[in-house]
Amino acid sequence: MFKIAVLPGDGIGPEVIEEGLKVLSAIEDKYKLKFDVKKYPFGGEAIDKYGVPYPEETKNACLSSDAVLLGAVGGHKWDDLEGDKRPEAGLLALRKSLGVYANLRPAVLYPPLKEASPLKNELLQEGLDILVVRELTGGIYFGPRGTVAIDYGFKAYDTEVYQTSEIERIAVIAFEAALKRKKKVTSVDKANILDSSRLWRKTVEEISKRYPDVELNHMYVDNCAMQLIKNPSQFDVILTSNMFGDILSDEASQLTGSIGMLPSASLREDKVGLYEPIHGSAPDIAGTKKANPLATILSVAMMLEYSFDLIDAANDIKDAVNKVLEAGYRTFDLGKGIILNTHEMGDKVVEYV
Amino acid sequence: MFKIAVLPGDGIGPEVIEEGLKVLSAIEDKYKLKFDVKKYPFGGEAIDKYGVPYPEETKNACLSSDAVLLGAVGGHKWDDLEGDKRPEAGLLALRKSLGVYANLRPAVLYPPLKEASPLKNELLQEGLDILVVRELTGGIYFGPRGTVAIDYGFKAYDTEVYQTSEIERIAVIAFEAALKRKKKVTSVDKANILDSSRLWRKTVEEISKRYPDVELNHMYVDNCAMQLIKNPSQFDVILTSNMFGDILSDEASQLTGSIGMLPSASLREDKVGLYEPIHGSAPDIAGTKKANPLATILSVAMMLEYSFDLIDAANDIKDAVNKVLEAGYRTFDLGKGIILNTHEMGDKVVEYV
Ligand SMILES: CC(C)[C@H](C(=O)O)[C@@H](O)C(=O)O
Ligand SMILES: CC(C)[C@H](C(=O)O)[C@@H](O)C(=O)O
Repeated sequence: MFKIAVLPGDGIGPEVIEEGLKVLSAIEDKYKLKFDVKKYPFGGEAIDKYGVPYPEETKNACLSSDAVLLGAVGGHKWDDLEGDKRPEAGLLALRKSLGVYANLRPAVLYPPLKEASPLKNELLQEGLDILVVRELTGGIYFGPRGTVAIDYGFKAYDTEVYQTSEIERIAVIAFEAALKRKKKVTSVDKANILDSSRLWRKTVEEISKRYPDVELNHMYVDNCAMQLIKNPSQFDVILTSNMFGDILSDEASQLTGSIGMLPSASLREDKVGLYEPIHGSAPDIAGTKKANPLATILSVAMMLEYSFDLIDAANDIKDAVNKVLEAGYRTFDLGKGIILNTHEMGDKVVEYV
Repeated sequence: MFKIAVLPGDGIGPEVIEEGLKVLSAIEDKYKLKFDVKKYPFGGEAIDKYGVPYPEETKNACLSSDAVLLGAVGGHKWDDLEGDKRPEAGLLALRKSLGVYANLRPAVLYPPLKEASPLKNELLQEGLDILVVRELTGGIYFGPRGTVAIDYGFKAYDTEVYQTSEIERIAVIAFEAALKRKKKVTSVDKANILDSSRLWRKTVEEISKRYPDVELNHMYVDNCAMQLIKNPSQFDVILTSNMFGDILSDEASQLTGSIGMLPSASLREDKVGLYEPIHGSAPDIAGTKKANPLATILSVAMMLEYSFDLIDAANDIKDAVNKVLEAGYRTFDLGKGIILNTHEMGDKVVEYV
């Protein structure tokens, strides 16, 4: 029996998680399965209760689970806390403690949602289906940092640091993913400036030799930020560092016009994974029933696929989501159609599952 | 008599510089002025001749000039050189030696070029006129770096470092610029993760108190990468670090659909400045006469305005460019119209000046 630690979190997190779990139940019924699902406090909610964003109890549960399903964390209420007491610090600690170094962020344009994309239609002829593979437990997010008083004011620093083994393992993930897709990896760095990027490029180059069928090209991060807009269909898999991946995956997802639809998975060598919608906690719409639960529902599908190898069940969910969209159902962020609230959208997906 | 060091550089650099200088001559004639203009080797060209991208002679000339006008540097030929021997290293050394810490990159949508923007027309109703103010002589571009052998492979690092005084002076530039525009500064950082960003945010906050008429808001870099696409007209001045500015200014410029049109200025306290088109050396079209010289011509206009206080002359150039576009003239990168080659476009601007 697979054990799932569920961290609803803050803002719209609990609302979208509820719908994700509803769909998971539907899968249990359909396939006569039983998952061991338990909720734990995390993020702002945990700060309010225990003073820390990632309490011991939650950590123990996550470390002994097969998968973690996360809603979203953060909100203005906790914005003024010290660095290590903020909801985001919990997210970083969660990723690091699980050791999930490979963050997979698909940016997919759903054909019925073409009009919601900010890009001109002619740029979307060939669709848009990019997988950003972002390194998640290294780089400037975790390197040495500090703030020191100097003669006038302060000096603050953060260190981008990567070692060969970290780059190798994330590169393998990207090439393996590309094998199942269009067989093209674009590795993004700033090798004309950064030492860490030059090691990145050299190491990716080495790994690519094991994958003669996958085309590799390198691109500078500034150019990638342009190319994503200019010609997004040139991309298949984008492989990049933690910081650049943070920026580029958000940019790529915005191009689809439907970030409320986009799931993510964070993985390590074994099948344990962390699954979360890429959108944030959206405190402004929390409680209004406007939140789009599809990103979380699709994160559940990724969990079934990557952590539990339940490919059919995962496909059932993806098909159901497609059918719901094709039938014209929308949440309010997705533009014109038959507008459903958060619960109704969850119910609709269950119906099609 | 103002002294201008001209560094044509590589690829299309010399071609667009020629047109920029043509327009500068036209201004000399019109206003009975005389500039002291001399060309110096820089970038790949200098590597080929002297083995270094920024030779002493060029450096001496730049340091004793009132302004430096640069074409573009780099090309595949020099891609495999060591870090400090590459054309890009010359660019960094040039910026640092001049001390031009404030990089101004306007991203403007020219109304006649609306169709060339990748964004849907409804997002462009209110136009697009963003000024990215990028810190240019600090941050991870210049912090301590290194690559060391470890048990398995290597470890490489780069340091993002900022001190109060560096942030203050670039913030002042942004707020002063905003005063002359729509009075809005968006400061972009990653303060939920980086120590340097938290110092950045605090310092910008302090400086903003001197500018009660300017609205300040803070945005995370990943969110900014999204917001630029989702709702670009929300931005007036974007203030950010060297690395984030590199990425975001390229993204913003791509939204205009006409990066061949965009100039830049890099300034310090006195009026000395470095002026360059934001586009690169485009080795693939070098020699084909297809290069768009307007970015360089507009960089000349910025030079007249910021370094020489010749506002009327600067406006003449800007007006001429607008008229040329309105009359339907285009270079091949700008889409449909009466297509001109590099020289013809330069001549056309001279005609309207
Ligand atoms: C909330 C923040 C710490 C986080 C990150 O930067 O990784 C978020 O932007 C993300 O991309 O998941
Ligand atoms: C060529 C490169 C070193 C440079 C930079 O990163 O600053 C360029 O991208 C720019 O933005 O001017």
